[in-house]
Amino acid sequence: MEHQLTIYNTLNRKKELFVPLKEPHVGMYVCGPTVYGDAHLGHARPAITFDLLFRYLKHLGYKVRYVRNITDVGHLEHDADEGEDKIAKKARLEQLEPMEVVQYYLTRYHHAMEALNVLPPSIEPMASGHIIEQMDFVQKILDAGYAYVSEGSVYFDIEKYSKDHNYGKLSGRNVEELLSTTRELDGQSEKKNSADFALWKKASPEHIMHWHSEWSEGFPGWHMECSAMGTKYLGEEFDIHGGGMDLLFPHHECEIAQSVAALGKETVHYWMHNNMITINGTKMGKSLGNFITLDEFFNGSHPILTQAYSAMTIRFFILQAHYRSTVGQSEHIYLESSSKSACFNIEDQANTPFFKLPCLQLLLAFQWYSQNGDDRLRFRRFQFPERGGKKHNGP
Amino acid sequence: MEHQLTIYNTLNRKKELFVPLKEPHVGMYVCGPTVYGDAHLGHARPAITFDLLFRYLKHLGYKVRYVRNITDVGHLEHDADEGEDKIAKKARLEQLEPMEVVQYYLTRYHHAMEALNVLPPSIEPMASGHIIEQMDFVQKILDAGYAYVSEGSVYFDIEKYSKDHNYGKLSGRNVEELLSTTRELDGQSEKKNSADFALWKKASPEHIMHWHSEWSEGFPGWHMECSAMGTKYLGEEFDIHGGGMDLLFPHHECEIAQSVAALGKETVHYWMHNNMITINGTKMGKSLGNFITLDEFFNGSHPILTQAYSAMTIRFFILQAHYRSTVGQSEHIYLESSSKSACFNIEDQANTPFFKLPCLQLLLAFQWYSQNGDDRLRFRRFQFPERGGKKHNGP
Repeated sequence: MEHQLTIYNTLNRKKELFVPLKEPHVGMYVCGPTVYGDAHLGHARPAITFDLLFRYLKHLGYKVRYVRNITDVGHLEHDADEGEDKIAKKARLEQLEPMEVVQYYLTRYHHAMEALNVLPPSIEPMASGHIIEQMDFVQKILDAGYAYVSEGSVYFDIEKYSKDHNYGKLSGRNVEELLSTTRELDGQSEKKNSADFALWKKASPEHIMHWHSEWSEGFPGWHMECSAMGTKYLGEEFDIHGGGMDLLFPHHECEIAQSVAALGKETVHYWMHNNMITINGTKMGKSLGNFITLDEFFNGSHPILTQAYSAMTIRFFILQAHYRSTVGQSEHIYLESSSKSACFNIEDQANTPFFKLPCLQLLLAFQWYSQNGDDRLRFRRFQFPERGGKKHNGP
Repeated sequence: MEHQLTIYNTLNRKKELFVPLKEPHVGMYVCGPTVYGDAHLGHARPAITFDLLFRYLKHLGYKVRYVRNITDVGHLEHDADEGEDKIAKKARLEQLEPMEVVQYYLTRYHHAMEALNVLPPSIEPMASGHIIEQMDFVQKILDAGYAYVSEGSVYFDIEKYSKDHNYGKLSGRNVEELLSTTRELDGQSEKKNSADFALWKKASPEHIMHWHSEWSEGFPGWHMECSAMGTKYLGEEFDIHGGGMDLLFPHHECEIAQSVAALGKETVHYWMHNNMITINGTKMGKSLGNFITLDEFFNGSHPILTQAYSAMTIRFFILQAHYRSTVGQSEHIYLESSSKSACFNIEDQANTPFFKLPCLQLLLAFQWYSQNGDDRLRFRRFQFPERGGKKHNGP
């Protein structure tokens, strides 16, 4: 390719020249939402960040296969191995079949993404639709000796794995500390070590979503879907894996361990992590309860908002900060957004003519460039936030 | 419920009072598209027909779980057991991963359905996401003795089944004739009788989409997904199964046989079939090549069209005929659409006040009734076709 792209690789903690495995093809996997509630501003950030990368890679001439998954099973309340399945809990509360919950929020997620002018990914696989692939992956890890069966569940053996490989290489966690602080819990759990994570969980009687396997009637551990679906659609090695920084540990760390254990190699060449949307200094998160949904922004219906914001204002808001910086959420920031840096890691790729434009124009030019037909119409509707504290009108 | 609903049940060939199994719940399954090309007018008809039924049932106060599937694997070119997988063939031609083909056309299908004001179903399961459920269903039929394994494929044994049950009860086919006309082919096929249909097919080497099973590395037969997914989400018995008349045989006939063989009972209480969109007297079909896509209608880009039609005109066009009558496609009919009968089996349910309005007003009132917020806006945009041969403007 004519233009070089530099990517900050979380794995090596430095900027690296992007060289795809099989030019002109690029494989990119990004962690998508767990669909048990409306998407909020925190969900918009990875979607918009990697949408821009997807568009830019295509603009450079690459043939990009962009996989963004939908988690619809196995993501437990405490983001680890305990608690109720998030979707099953919502289904129980709303007296619905879990897949009705999934369908409802998935349709709404798609609408919100379309409003934000986020392109659909090339493939949007669902975890519940890839149980066989996940069981196969678990079996490979068992065959390699890095997992064990206990009471019908299958756990990854971190102590065993750490003797041969480096658990913690992505997140920088010290595995010795991790194992020693959790070792004291032994005997109270079916795990050898409480740092071990589930590859397959035996379903408790009240658990609604389960499939039969040779280990138990159960469901896959949450980290398994990305390993199984990523390699199914992008191959055992692919270029880019993206997601929010909050997924770095344990989710992405576990993905690396799963790949190395099952395939004998690392799957991902470039790990990219967007930073969080913060609200009063804390990450905005569904499970933290401090979120404002995208629909609430679009129609101004959340109590702390005094007006509605067009989807393009939200897109602009997200893009005003570098994707690895936090974005603090307050109305003040919206109103000042035009004075902020609005580039996507632009300093690394300043060779093409329109990259010489001032930063803001550049963003607009880039958006224009990657848009067509309907999108252009949408672009014309873009309402630029007014300076000086005066509020602009909502959509 | 206060208002009685009468449904023409294809199974018994008569109008029957609708009595749900578990009032106030109604389970409804409708065969959705095979996503290997843009949706055409023929796809709009079942979607709009059963959308109206879905809305009407909800209006009556039922809690409706509406399942409409997406076929993304196993639907072979010749609608039976031979030929290439339709999606895999498209993927080969376009040099894409099959699931990229699926994602692309599924997104476009959703957009077209939204333009037509068709509500999303409660659950939209994909065949490739339910391989385990399909294998389980195949195993049940094998266990019951109504199927056999041959060269890694599993076939339904129609001769055996017909000794105990009635194969042909839905379509009226004579099983004796069916078996005798196809018996002569024996010896040339791995089937006992060429009327037998595949429950599981061993994948040929060039076949891209396959999963391992105890029978072979292969994929489910096309009829299996609806049996497996319908019963998974709606139970072993549910109320309504809908689809186009072209699916009556062999697809729905095979579904009944599969259910009776595996579960010992019929799953569906009311079978409903919409008639076809015809073009010059022939069914409009993707595989027949005589189709006009919905997008071509919306933007007037097909060579035989002289103008564009708004999505609401298309919805009206579909609803102007009784759903069990054919609709012949010509521009002439569009222009005359206001003079046609525009009711949905209305004669069966003429008790509510607005059912006493003239037929056309009734449709509009009904549409208005079932719409809200955005929909109402859309309704106001509805362009009523002018009479007398003068063409109205497109959208």
